[in-house]
Amino acid sequence: MSGFEVDRVVDALRHVRGEWRDAQKRPREAAGREFPSRDALSTLIEQLKGALFPMRLGPSDLRQDGEDFYVAHTLDVALHALLDQARLELHYVARHAPRPAAEIEAQARDAVRAFAAALPGIRRLLDTDVVAAFQGDPAAHSVDEVLLCYPGVLAMIYHRLANQLYQLDLPLLARIVAELAHGLTGIDIHPGAQIAGGFFIDHGTGVVIGETAVIGQRVRIYQAVTLGAKRFPVDAHGLLQKGLPRHPVVEDEVVIYAGATVLGRVTIGRGAVIGGNVWLTDDVPAGASVTQAGLQNEKARPAAQPLPVAAT
Amino acid sequence: MSGFEVDRVVDALRHVRGEWRDAQKRPREAAGREFPSRDALSTLIEQLKGALFPMRLGPSDLRQDGEDFYVAHTLDVALHALLDQARLELHYVARHAPRPAAEIEAQARDAVRAFAAALPGIRRLLDTDVVAAFQGDPAAHSVDEVLLCYPGVLAMIYHRLANQLYQLDLPLLARIVAELAHGLTGIDIHPGAQIAGGFFIDHGTGVVIGETAVIGQRVRIYQAVTLGAKRFPVDAHGLLQKGLPRHPVVEDEVVIYAGATVLGRVTIGRGAVIGGNVWLTDDVPAGASVTQAGLQNEKARPAAQPLPVAAT
Amino acid sequence: MSGFEVDRVVDALRHVRGEWRDAQKRPREAAGREFPSRDALSTLIEQLKGALFPMRLGPSDLRQDGEDFYVAHTLDVALHALLDQARLELHYVARHAPRPAAEIEAQARDAVRAFAAALPGIRRLLDTDVVAAFQGDPAAHSVDEVLLCYPGVLAMIYHRLANQLYQLDLPLLARIVAELAHGLTGIDIHPGAQIAGGFFIDHGTGVVIGETAVIGQRVRIYQAVTLGAKRFPVDAHGLLQKGLPRHPVVEDEVVIYAGATVLGRVTIGRGAVIGGNVWLTDDVPAGASVTQAGLQNEKARPAAQPLPVAAT
Amino acid sequence: MSGFEVDRVVDALRHVRGEWRDAQKRPREAAGREFPSRDALSTLIEQLKGALFPMRLGPSDLRQDGEDFYVAHTLDVALHALLDQARLELHYVARHAPRPAAEIEAQARDAVRAFAAALPGIRRLLDTDVVAAFQGDPAAHSVDEVLLCYPGVLAMIYHRLANQLYQLDLPLLARIVAELAHGLTGIDIHPGAQIAGGFFIDHGTGVVIGETAVIGQRVRIYQAVTLGAKRFPVDAHGLLQKGLPRHPVVEDEVVIYAGATVLGRVTIGRGAVIGGNVWLTDDVPAGASVTQAGLQNEKARPAAQPLPVAAT
Amino acid sequence: MSGFEVDRVVDALRHVRGEWRDAQKRPREAAGREFPSRDALSTLIEQLKGALFPMRLGPSDLRQDGEDFYVAHTLDVALHALLDQARLELHYVARHAPRPAAEIEAQARDAVRAFAAALPGIRRLLDTDVVAAFQGDPAAHSVDEVLLCYPGVLAMIYHRLANQLYQLDLPLLARIVAELAHGLTGIDIHPGAQIAGGFFIDHGTGVVIGETAVIGQRVRIYQAVTLGAKRFPVDAHGLLQKGLPRHPVVEDEVVIYAGATVLGRVTIGRGAVIGGNVWLTDDVPAGASVTQAGLQNEKARPAAQPLPVAAT
Amino acid sequence: MSGFEVDRVVDALRHVRGEWRDAQKRPREAAGREFPSRDALSTLIEQLKGALFPMRLGPSDLRQDGEDFYVAHTLDVALHALLDQARLELHYVARHAPRPAAEIEAQARDAVRAFAAALPGIRRLLDTDVVAAFQGDPAAHSVDEVLLCYPGVLAMIYHRLANQLYQLDLPLLARIVAELAHGLTGIDIHPGAQIAGGFFIDHGTGVVIGETAVIGQRVRIYQAVTLGAKRFPVDAHGLLQKGLPRHPVVEDEVVIYAGATVLGRVTIGRGAVIGGNVWLTDDVPAGASVTQAGLQNEKARPAAQPLPVAAT
Repeated sequence: MSGFEVDRVVDALRHVRGEWRDAQKRPREAAGREFPSRDALSTLIEQLKGALFPMRLGPSDLRQDGEDFYVAHTLDVALHALLDQARLELHYVARHAPRPAAEIEAQARDAVRAFAAALPGIRRLLDTDVVAAFQGDPAAHSVDEVLLCYPGVLAMIYHRLANQLYQLDLPLLARIVAELAHGLTGIDIHPGAQIAGGFFIDHGTGVVIGETAVIGQRVRIYQAVTLGAKRFPVDAHGLLQKGLPRHPVVEDEVVIYAGATVLGRVTIGRGAVIGGNVWLTDDVPAGASVTQAGLQNEKARPAAQPLPVAAT
Repeated sequence: MSGFEVDRVVDALRHVRGEWRDAQKRPREAAGREFPSRDALSTLIEQLKGALFPMRLGPSDLRQDGEDFYVAHTLDVALHALLDQARLELHYVARHAPRPAAEIEAQARDAVRAFAAALPGIRRLLDTDVVAAFQGDPAAHSVDEVLLCYPGVLAMIYHRLANQLYQLDLPLLARIVAELAHGLTGIDIHPGAQIAGGFFIDHGTGVVIGETAVIGQRVRIYQAVTLGAKRFPVDAHGLLQKGLPRHPVVEDEVVIYAGATVLGRVTIGRGAVIGGNVWLTDDVPAGASVTQAGLQNEKARPAAQPLPVAAT
Repeated sequence: MSGFEVDRVVDALRHVRGEWRDAQKRPREAAGREFPSRDALSTLIEQLKGALFPMRLGPSDLRQDGEDFYVAHTLDVALHALLDQARLELHYVARHAPRPAAEIEAQARDAVRAFAAALPGIRRLLDTDVVAAFQGDPAAHSVDEVLLCYPGVLAMIYHRLANQLYQLDLPLLARIVAELAHGLTGIDIHPGAQIAGGFFIDHGTGVVIGETAVIGQRVRIYQAVTLGAKRFPVDAHGLLQKGLPRHPVVEDEVVIYAGATVLGRVTIGRGAVIGGNVWLTDDVPAGASVTQAGLQNEKARPAAQPLPVAAT
Repeated sequence: MSGFEVDRVVDALRHVRGEWRDAQKRPREAAGREFPSRDALSTLIEQLKGALFPMRLGPSDLRQDGEDFYVAHTLDVALHALLDQARLELHYVARHAPRPAAEIEAQARDAVRAFAAALPGIRRLLDTDVVAAFQGDPAAHSVDEVLLCYPGVLAMIYHRLANQLYQLDLPLLARIVAELAHGLTGIDIHPGAQIAGGFFIDHGTGVVIGETAVIGQRVRIYQAVTLGAKRFPVDAHGLLQKGLPRHPVVEDEVVIYAGATVLGRVTIGRGAVIGGNVWLTDDVPAGASVTQAGLQNEKARPAAQPLPVAAT
Repeated sequence: MSGFEVDRVVDALRHVRGEWRDAQKRPREAAGREFPSRDALSTLIEQLKGALFPMRLGPSDLRQDGEDFYVAHTLDVALHALLDQARLELHYVARHAPRPAAEIEAQARDAVRAFAAALPGIRRLLDTDVVAAFQGDPAAHSVDEVLLCYPGVLAMIYHRLANQLYQLDLPLLARIVAELAHGLTGIDIHPGAQIAGGFFIDHGTGVVIGETAVIGQRVRIYQAVTLGAKRFPVDAHGLLQKGLPRHPVVEDEVVIYAGATVLGRVTIGRGAVIGGNVWLTDDVPAGASVTQAGLQNEKARPAAQPLPVAAT
Repeated sequence: MSGFEVDRVVDALRHVRGEWRDAQKRPREAAGREFPSRDALSTLIEQLKGALFPMRLGPSDLRQDGEDFYVAHTLDVALHALLDQARLELHYVARHAPRPAAEIEAQARDAVRAFAAALPGIRRLLDTDVVAAFQGDPAAHSVDEVLLCYPGVLAMIYHRLANQLYQLDLPLLARIVAELAHGLTGIDIHPGAQIAGGFFIDHGTGVVIGETAVIGQRVRIYQAVTLGAKRFPVDAHGLLQKGLPRHPVVEDEVVIYAGATVLGRVTIGRGAVIGGNVWLTDDVPAGASVTQAGLQNEKARPAAQPLPVAAT
């Protein structure tokens, strides 16, 4: 009917979908949607944010004496929504390796129960991140400002929740949560990255942190820092070996300035300082300082020499 | 009345608007809004995304046996909304070069008809992008995860639609669609860029691809890669010459790692590899590898040497 | 009741909140929410955008003959919403240095009155930014396209409003507005930065501009440019000295290409050109050109030599 | 595809629609929607309510010193929305009696201009209704309560606007407005009814007032009162004669109690009282009182005799 | 915590709910919500209204050439939503008389399939109602006005859908739909009532039509008419006998004026006229006329005698 | 500017508002909105409905094991919203009789505390109403159906809450709640009416119950029943005497059929039956039956005689 030959386009699109489904070895006629929902995860993470920080990130008219009622109801709703999503991921994974539905259900419930039990610890870690941001940025006026304004703190709220999902064998949910944060902040942290307390990302746009990165206490990094892999490890047959450690280990109290790139399973020793735009594929000893001009022993560094820092 | 002297501010703002309209040689009293709407385009691109991938990006309760009904109605609505926007762009352009309304109407309808007819081909190309992302990232678990999570895939959905609008002489609509993707993903692809199938952008934040760039089959790039112009070509009178080729040509199966900058109408030969943070303004032969240390012949490269890669 | 032991999690979260409040020396039982609201500011900045550019950024069905009614009502609503937020910031600041509520009220009203009075001047400055973007990007077809599409222009609308709040001693509100723009565009401009008219940021993702930066007339910068501090100035006791000038001064008509990093209180002289990816911690004379290869005298630069430019 | 044979139902519904359009002598393929929109009218009447009573029925955060800004913008928006609807009605009417579009446009504009000019007078009349409700119901505590709570007052706001549209030859718009009130209150007043000031309907459910009814000053009626027609007047050929007076004339200060039915072009004289459930098809002299037992002379009525009243 | 002892109220409410569940012999701990949803039915009936009358009650920007796409998608969505509700009702009914889930599923699907197949016939019947309203009300200007404005027509759209559900053994869904109409229009038609084509209810508020009423072709009734039962039939043991005919039979072309009450299984013969407020518990012969004064033979009625009619 | 002379209309409306405010002896320039909000009350009553019947009228995805979390949070929010409204009413009342703000605050808090404490009792009473509706209507299939569908039950939920507000000296809030129910159901119960448990209103449209009515246990009434006042009592000076008993007393187990009108402080004795459309201004003895034909002694009534009942 329509002047745009909608009928014909619909037919052609159906044909292309059919080809895709055949190529992917999927049934042309299937039951329903078996994949987790980005929107559902977005909503429940928003709810968990509110339950973790009720007076700052909860509803604007919340009173302190009603906090627990709000936290309890919000958690109850968010955890059951998470249960739905966990079921979806586990069933999705099981489509190639069928197993009893009751087993999936039990695993999903166990995962959500463990996730719930981890929330107080996550809040405690996030409190250290907030303090680190407040102390690390002289422009910050209060911990409240940090919690409400700083994209690095927002990214860490999402990451600590995503990392918990990753640890609980729900990597798809974890990945979706990580990409939600990426879209909001321009900070791309793989949910597998292990990050200790007191972590501060300033400015943040363009930061990339890989799956097997390990980051110690009170580390500070700036915008456009990459903690990446040098190459994908392959086995004797040239096949990719997944899960091997391939990203940097960053020890306690390291500072990495804007635009620096650290690649491979190298270790940056405790208290080292990596200058802006530095390209680094080797270990750095504790306390050392690396600039674009090369590695320097901490003691030898003249007091007056400027460290390349960020815009703060 | 108000304590903030709203009346006076309103007067002053009217005065400034008047100056602007005079400077722009516009009538102070005009009829209405003659410019395409960012919100309307955002809505219709969302609809087209759903129509292209109904079971993954359509409504969450869609069943496979209702796909065609959904696709048909959604296309019908989106294409007519696009027709409205196409009319707005063409009338806007025609304000300095008046021509018959019927001619504009015919052009708008032809453009939307051609756009509709191109959709199945666009879906087919996007399927190759999804496969490329799945194969290019060892961390990817499934094509579905790639389609739902990866910002690089999202950016390509928008780009392939924007590029079609660009080819159909609707550059403003194309530009608005491109900026919508830029805001969502941090990936900035000019709608004029010509990109063949199987294109994969990993992480993506900070990628910039210019208007006359040409990209071959199965190319892979990482975050913060720039494919830019060296300088704007000027004619004998020093005037900018628009539309001349001024961005790189990237041949099939090239890989460009994070932070690399390639400027000018250079050609990167088939299968070449450009290392991270490389600054490049010259041609690269097929199969070669370029690191910050300089160009290397592929055969001469020792097997053990690490390639600078990204965070995956 | 619930299988997820919500009651127990609620108790544990209350316990952690209590610890935090103790550590922050806050009352465990407090009255209400005393911090400005990100959502409220987002809404009112949207309204001010519409009031500043009614026919382009106001409601899509606005007619030119109803502009003033719309502008007056929208300003009236937005300014009073701003008054609420200003009160919240001033009371929040006053919690450690109590002072009479009437004094706070008077300061809040004075600030909003001054803010209102500044709006026409802000519109005039933004008009110069729009013209600069139109002239600086040969791909731009019209000033309207620039206003609706370019993230650099969007960032400047937010910045000029945020900078006004910063000048009026409302730094928290200013910071929240700046972070709203950062989230939307990937452009991170501290609200304290002083930027003259005709400023153009192309592409923009990853740009960072620090608090004491000073930027002259008709400056143009590209994506991922940093105007940062070298180090935080400390006094004789090693304490951070806040507010000292520590970011670059960029004089009129300077151009800074993508990825360049300029650190510290250096001055880039009028009309200088800074090449892509350049790392710069020293003054640059007027008219000079700096590439990764080093500083060049303008007159010595051969006409044919390519300047490293961005993707436009 | 679907188990419900949607395709077949769609075909059958198209067939039935086709038959209907043939029976109504309409083209099977037509341009668009040519009828006024109930939703659009609902929205604009809500806006006019707010413009008429800004501090009571306008937005809840309106301040008195911002009233005029709100009123001006809201009127501007509502009147132009009304202009759209007026055009739709006039074009709809003109489909059987074509006339120049410019003539229709002029009539629509004239009607809306006259409507706008009538608003202050309508507000003044409504003020008398509010006072009447306050005085007529001993349970009313304030004029504000009356304005916010009483369905009879709500019905009169709609009626006085609908009646103005009716007088301006926009009977379809008027009818839609009247039915909106009917749905909200259960009070069904034909927009043609002429009702003077100080009119009060208590409780209201089931009230019906016909097109040619004429009601004087300070009349009071209760729920389920009908002011109807006895029969439709026909001419010598038995055809319905439209527009002839066929509903009651109710003079000043009459009271009609619940459930009374008054039919035909009878006159109820000034100050008369009609008892509950009375069935009346004859004139009633001024000052008389009618109960189910029959007509009584005012003077003869013993002081102690109860008048049948309503639930107040 | 809260000053209102919310904890204590919650406990008390739980206690009362427990008592209720015990009294109703329900488990205190149950699985979920097993009852149909009023909101879901409201939404799907709105969708069906649009699918039945796409150009009048569908989306305001629908074009005639996109009707079938809209109708197909909307039907597809609405019918599957109805399937969900039908399952809920059947499972709810089965809680006291358990039967196989597959049997319930089959019944639900059969019912929805039959419902879908009945829609074209329902549209055809509704067309006769629209024509009847147009012809029956001299104030009506067009069939479109009737369809958009008249509460009696709205009530019949709901009733004809509800009656279909009732016939398909889904009495709860049917009842909810009927009450939705009752809330919108004040017209209360039991979904079991059998009503032939060309039925017109004018004004409508207060109309009540009982479950076993039977209404012929082209009947017209006015506001506050009741077609009720005299008493509930009881069996020899005094128990209520459900489902026995106990409401009036109204033959073709009868007119019943406002406020008339007809009770019991009486028959009102073809073409009879029942006057306003008449109380009737006996049969009326065809062609007769009944006023409050009693039954009259049609032929004996003098031409000039007024019939009590409604407000039209 | 506008063709509709909006400026002039705004001026005229301001003038009329000024006259009104003068006539009402109000300041032309006032602070803000001091009246309770209909929207706020509508929202909070919806919340209380959910808190009272969580699994039937709460959110559709509520699970029984999360009930208490939902009830606690919802009550907490609704009670504090009610506190805001109570403050508004008390301050409004105090504008003519000023008293200390702290006294008003204490009264508002006491009222809400008492209201909260009364909720379990209200739920218990409503359970008896639900049972009465189920038993009183042979067409009802379950108590759940009754709770979700019956307008009479909905009206009683609102009334029992409104009556509690009325008892707590918040008559304006009570009145607004009553009118919300009136708008939804067509049932108009004054919040002052005292109604014992097991009350059932069938069909309901047009029911009116006055302020001083007293209704006993297990009473059943039908649509369009009025329990009204005969006349307003006046004192020796002819002034209205407010608050005197002026509406009927209806004893336990009375049934009143549709359309009956009972006026004045009469008593209808236990178990009496009032027939349809009866007009009654005198006492009725216990067990008696009244039809339009007059009063009958219960014992004398022949078994076969039909009682005038409603449409059920």
